[in-house]
Amino acid sequence: MPIRIQTLLLSIGGFRAKLGVIMKRVKTAVVGASGYTGQELLRILLLHPGVELVCATSRQYEGKTLSDVFPRFRGVPGADLKFCGASVESILGAAPQAAFLALPHGVAVEYGRALVEAGVRVIDLSADFRLNDPTVYEEFYGKPHADVPLMQEAVYGMPEWHHKEIARSRIVGSPGCYPTSIILPLVPLLREKLIEPETIIANSLSGVSGAGRKADVAYHFCECNESMRAYSVPRHRHLSEIEQELSAAAGCPLRITFIPHLMPVNTGILTTITARLAPNASLQRITNCLQQAYATAPFVRLLGADKPADTKNVTRTNFVDIGWAVDDRTGRVILMSAEDNVVKGAGGQAVHSFNIMFDLPETTGLILL
Amino acid sequence: MPIRIQTLLLSIGGFRAKLGVIMKRVKTAVVGASGYTGQELLRILLLHPGVELVCATSRQYEGKTLSDVFPRFRGVPGADLKFCGASVESILGAAPQAAFLALPHGVAVEYGRALVEAGVRVIDLSADFRLNDPTVYEEFYGKPHADVPLMQEAVYGMPEWHHKEIARSRIVGSPGCYPTSIILPLVPLLREKLIEPETIIANSLSGVSGAGRKADVAYHFCECNESMRAYSVPRHRHLSEIEQELSAAAGCPLRITFIPHLMPVNTGILTTITARLAPNASLQRITNCLQQAYATAPFVRLLGADKPADTKNVTRTNFVDIGWAVDDRTGRVILMSAEDNVVKGAGGQAVHSFNIMFDLPETTGLILL
Amino acid sequence: MPIRIQTLLLSIGGFRAKLGVIMKRVKTAVVGASGYTGQELLRILLLHPGVELVCATSRQYEGKTLSDVFPRFRGVPGADLKFCGASVESILGAAPQAAFLALPHGVAVEYGRALVEAGVRVIDLSADFRLNDPTVYEEFYGKPHADVPLMQEAVYGMPEWHHKEIARSRIVGSPGCYPTSIILPLVPLLREKLIEPETIIANSLSGVSGAGRKADVAYHFCECNESMRAYSVPRHRHLSEIEQELSAAAGCPLRITFIPHLMPVNTGILTTITARLAPNASLQRITNCLQQAYATAPFVRLLGADKPADTKNVTRTNFVDIGWAVDDRTGRVILMSAEDNVVKGAGGQAVHSFNIMFDLPETTGLILL
Amino acid sequence: MPIRIQTLLLSIGGFRAKLGVIMKRVKTAVVGASGYTGQELLRILLLHPGVELVCATSRQYEGKTLSDVFPRFRGVPGADLKFCGASVESILGAAPQAAFLALPHGVAVEYGRALVEAGVRVIDLSADFRLNDPTVYEEFYGKPHADVPLMQEAVYGMPEWHHKEIARSRIVGSPGCYPTSIILPLVPLLREKLIEPETIIANSLSGVSGAGRKADVAYHFCECNESMRAYSVPRHRHLSEIEQELSAAAGCPLRITFIPHLMPVNTGILTTITARLAPNASLQRITNCLQQAYATAPFVRLLGADKPADTKNVTRTNFVDIGWAVDDRTGRVILMSAEDNVVKGAGGQAVHSFNIMFDLPETTGLILL
Repeated sequence: MPIRIQTLLLSIGGFRAKLGVIMKRVKTAVVGASGYTGQELLRILLLHPGVELVCATSRQYEGKTLSDVFPRFRGVPGADLKFCGASVESILGAAPQAAFLALPHGVAVEYGRALVEAGVRVIDLSADFRLNDPTVYEEFYGKPHADVPLMQEAVYGMPEWHHKEIARSRIVGSPGCYPTSIILPLVPLLREKLIEPETIIANSLSGVSGAGRKADVAYHFCECNESMRAYSVPRHRHLSEIEQELSAAAGCPLRITFIPHLMPVNTGILTTITARLAPNASLQRITNCLQQAYATAPFVRLLGADKPADTKNVTRTNFVDIGWAVDDRTGRVILMSAEDNVVKGAGGQAVHSFNIMFDLPETTGLILL
Repeated sequence: MPIRIQTLLLSIGGFRAKLGVIMKRVKTAVVGASGYTGQELLRILLLHPGVELVCATSRQYEGKTLSDVFPRFRGVPGADLKFCGASVESILGAAPQAAFLALPHGVAVEYGRALVEAGVRVIDLSADFRLNDPTVYEEFYGKPHADVPLMQEAVYGMPEWHHKEIARSRIVGSPGCYPTSIILPLVPLLREKLIEPETIIANSLSGVSGAGRKADVAYHFCECNESMRAYSVPRHRHLSEIEQELSAAAGCPLRITFIPHLMPVNTGILTTITARLAPNASLQRITNCLQQAYATAPFVRLLGADKPADTKNVTRTNFVDIGWAVDDRTGRVILMSAEDNVVKGAGGQAVHSFNIMFDLPETTGLILL
Repeated sequence: MPIRIQTLLLSIGGFRAKLGVIMKRVKTAVVGASGYTGQELLRILLLHPGVELVCATSRQYEGKTLSDVFPRFRGVPGADLKFCGASVESILGAAPQAAFLALPHGVAVEYGRALVEAGVRVIDLSADFRLNDPTVYEEFYGKPHADVPLMQEAVYGMPEWHHKEIARSRIVGSPGCYPTSIILPLVPLLREKLIEPETIIANSLSGVSGAGRKADVAYHFCECNESMRAYSVPRHRHLSEIEQELSAAAGCPLRITFIPHLMPVNTGILTTITARLAPNASLQRITNCLQQAYATAPFVRLLGADKPADTKNVTRTNFVDIGWAVDDRTGRVILMSAEDNVVKGAGGQAVHSFNIMFDLPETTGLILL
Repeated sequence: MPIRIQTLLLSIGGFRAKLGVIMKRVKTAVVGASGYTGQELLRILLLHPGVELVCATSRQYEGKTLSDVFPRFRGVPGADLKFCGASVESILGAAPQAAFLALPHGVAVEYGRALVEAGVRVIDLSADFRLNDPTVYEEFYGKPHADVPLMQEAVYGMPEWHHKEIARSRIVGSPGCYPTSIILPLVPLLREKLIEPETIIANSLSGVSGAGRKADVAYHFCECNESMRAYSVPRHRHLSEIEQELSAAAGCPLRITFIPHLMPVNTGILTTITARLAPNASLQRITNCLQQAYATAPFVRLLGADKPADTKNVTRTNFVDIGWAVDDRTGRVILMSAEDNVVKGAGGQAVHSFNIMFDLPETTGLILL
């Protein structure tokens, strides 16, 4: 691992001095960086003190700088990097130690093996490396997976529950935005058997960035503004990874109902989950269970009982806020989570895995406000 | 009652013609007209061909014209009417035949008996006359009802299910915005026992007008824009009327989970309901049931199976759009409804009752686009 | 022409009554009805008592009904009309008396002559028939006009200033959205020489519907929401018709600076104009001049001195609100106008011309709230 | 100045170690921290490596933590600081070296002298210390200034033009949001006499956060969303500081027309300025002039000729983007600037002055994305 020198400001007595201290910066590539997820990933990596961005690929924007494509980045150190072509060769030419893949589903798989075998540690933000079971993949994505062994080797990149596996993995399948908001509140309760697994209903509301940066009339301002609508009813693809992780937590296969909705905000996911309480459960036990599960998780903020989450408190941060309530009238628990779909739900969570993989403090570059 | 002439479309042989017929205009008062519900009610009534607006009350704006307070109305015939004081005497002084009450909960009840006994037919948009059971009222509204006999006499003003009772009623309790969006999709399925009553979960998303026109930082633009949040968890007051109507449809008492959310749109409610299918149910039976129930309902638009509703298609109209789907994986039905909270969910539905009470064609003044 | 009966309000002695009178409904075609302007035009025409919609064309949606394409229209009488192909033959096959053209610039001209010569009276909403001078057309639209004689015959369809010519015209070029908001406040002041013509600066803010219903990333929700930007600086095409009309009012050629901006609202234009006062001008004279000019104009609402206009009061209506102020410190007048870009700025104003052409009361079908 | 120890991550060979390095952190107070400006200031200061936040005052929230009041800050180091009372004594009790005043106009002046005389360097974000001339203050703020000597001592805190004075000042009057967006583009052109000073017109569009965090129906979501309106026409208070700075640049007194507008976005100011070119000016000279003026300014991003600014590229950053164009038809220059009203227009610019006053690198804590 190359050693880099970083300058720091020192003040000794009345004097100030710049001191070079030795610190590692990881050479990093971003593959497919021109969508909303890629943009958010770049925003985080440009300011990340442990990252040296050596390569960003884009078929569409090859030859332009990051700040040409994302004018928001102008004037920020590193934003004059030019997008390069998207071939494996051009990526490896930059000699990265780490590569983030922000590509469409089905495309990331084309890069995985070549990069991993070249010694590059991969964090994939698509769905290509999230599942374990090739049958489930085919059921939800409509074709056989192109590299089943690598898919099965890959770790599901949810740091709160797979920290150790992430640390030693060659390739991480970073969770989807909806799944993150659903899995995090539920896993502790399922592990402790405080809810009945077959009664879970999750309603999620997403900002329009979740639909991607596409030229499509459906996402025209006038079609989304002052509009609220469900979509992909009744079987959104994210169900596959949600049920994989929840089944593992419950210790038995389970199926949930999940209904995504499109809302007129740029970013943010709000998820409201209901489930029937197990006979031994209570508000106090729910509270204790969640508090124990996330006592040391730096990005999970537990709001407390009867405290709804609000996406405006988490947008552009890597936090997920979780509130809960018990409805005594019906014997159900209500779980409410809020996250930013392109940060905790995509780029931020991927960088969290990166920090773990490269043995950096977990929150490095991720205290965003 | 003054006599007016209205045109009707006639079809004689191959020819179509409009015929002028003699028709009444009903002298109408609006009590408490300065909030968002009052504003919407006035918008509808100003253009309603069967209404003569004789009185609009407002403590805050007494002496100002409708168009002073709502500049949107300037230049519209009738908008130079002046707000008068809110005493029963000043209302009766205008000799109305009908009165809409757009007052806060607990205030409307002060007007009900005096107006009814003076021969004024009352359509109340608050919660004061929606419930039958005084115990339930007290449980949800925190104090005993001030006029139980009149509350019990009042008809729940949902024209799709109480048309006859509305026609002959002296006083109507017009349904709440959330309840309308929840009751309409569910009643047919409960009546035909196609779903299991105890499994109903309703998630509703409302525009900010639903919170009223209040000077409260919680509804400041910057607190609502780019924000999504649940509230009143787990027991919103509207549960009382929802469960009253659903229990009647099911033929047994039932309890549901209902979770309201605040969304950054001006108006609109989107409701997503799930319930477990009864053993004998199927997508086809669900579809048939809804189609039979609403075949002649002028304001219920059935979108069809697997067709999500979108609030932008109903805002400012009196339509409610309903779509549905069956999730075979979990055996649940998903019902999706969209309405405008201040039209079908308030002012429009109240005018629909008014049309029925005064024997006008149901859609008079309510084909709004 | 089919014969219909319409009601009119009569006042006889102290009594008011509605009388059924025999009235025509004009057979009407809408050519190119699938954009935001077409949608708004259809919204107005579907509810217009003097219109029988006999034809709506759309290449893209041929064979679908109006309500298939615009689900908002479902359940409204007439919305089951099917879009037909866009050939002149298919339009004439429906035997319309009037045709609205809601086509892109440069396409409308292909229809104008054929329709006019077939006896159809044409209201064109594109820029093809707004200008008198072919040189100006070529300068701003980049190619010679394809039918200069018809362009020169066409009347500029601003009812406030060209009522008589509209009444007798075969073809009307209905004004652009920005021009309407700029010309209306300025014409009276230029005619009375209360401002210095060469000092006019107009800044206009438009909702995103003004950009059209295009699949273009520039109008993606996330690119427009929480964004404010100018565009087409320094020479927007609308300058051509603005300067044509203002020069006519001033009695001499003039040039203005006009800067359009894109704002995150669905519809609405807010225009702020400054100009230096002529030596003889004053706030009082400005006020008098505007009041005299628009005393009988049904859709111009004068707000008064020091009263800014607000688009939320005019959206979805055919009103334009105008306020004004004098800045004594700098000797300038500030004019502020608000309109809905797709109603007064497009569909509503076109229907206003239609009403005049077919001798209907000016406000027929245009009292929209 | 107290000496603080900060830990840094070191990687030497395969080992990692935490090393304490000596670095100054300035003890800092924020007075009046509960509005939108205070919130933004806190956001920046919490993450600023040269700041130790020792005191935040709020009458309303005394005793609550920063993250109680701003849930967005939960989990961020330092956010458990408690708001204290707003007396000078309680501020001085925390022994700050620097104090930011984020108080209403007319209140900040009560704190200025006491803090300055206690040796605290003050950055005031209100209008109390921006003006030099007490007559102008009284004209625009309606009463005599309460501490004219301190007002005249205070430096106008625009780092691009007053860097040296800021460095040695005891008290800085940090510029207003609108003035920043107007002064920065104009000063270079006025200094080089490339425009005619008396022809300047500035139209500015502001997000609703600019109106403050007030319980006022005028800023209710439904009153601002889908609304565009001008206000404070024709004489907004900010004119006083704008004209002060522009007159200094021009070398002669000048007056401009300035028209602020309220737009439905949370933050951001877009300003469009027109002025007549001086006889010797040209697009090339304008471009050169701006480029020379801001060649080394870290937060001014020059977009180039014919490049409009877009607020979405600057929100939440300390950048101001400036584009320009020349309209040859009218001989005017058009200047377009975009900034975040609560960052470059308030909190960020204030921290920029702070960095200069305490000899920190200018961009410390201000590279925000």
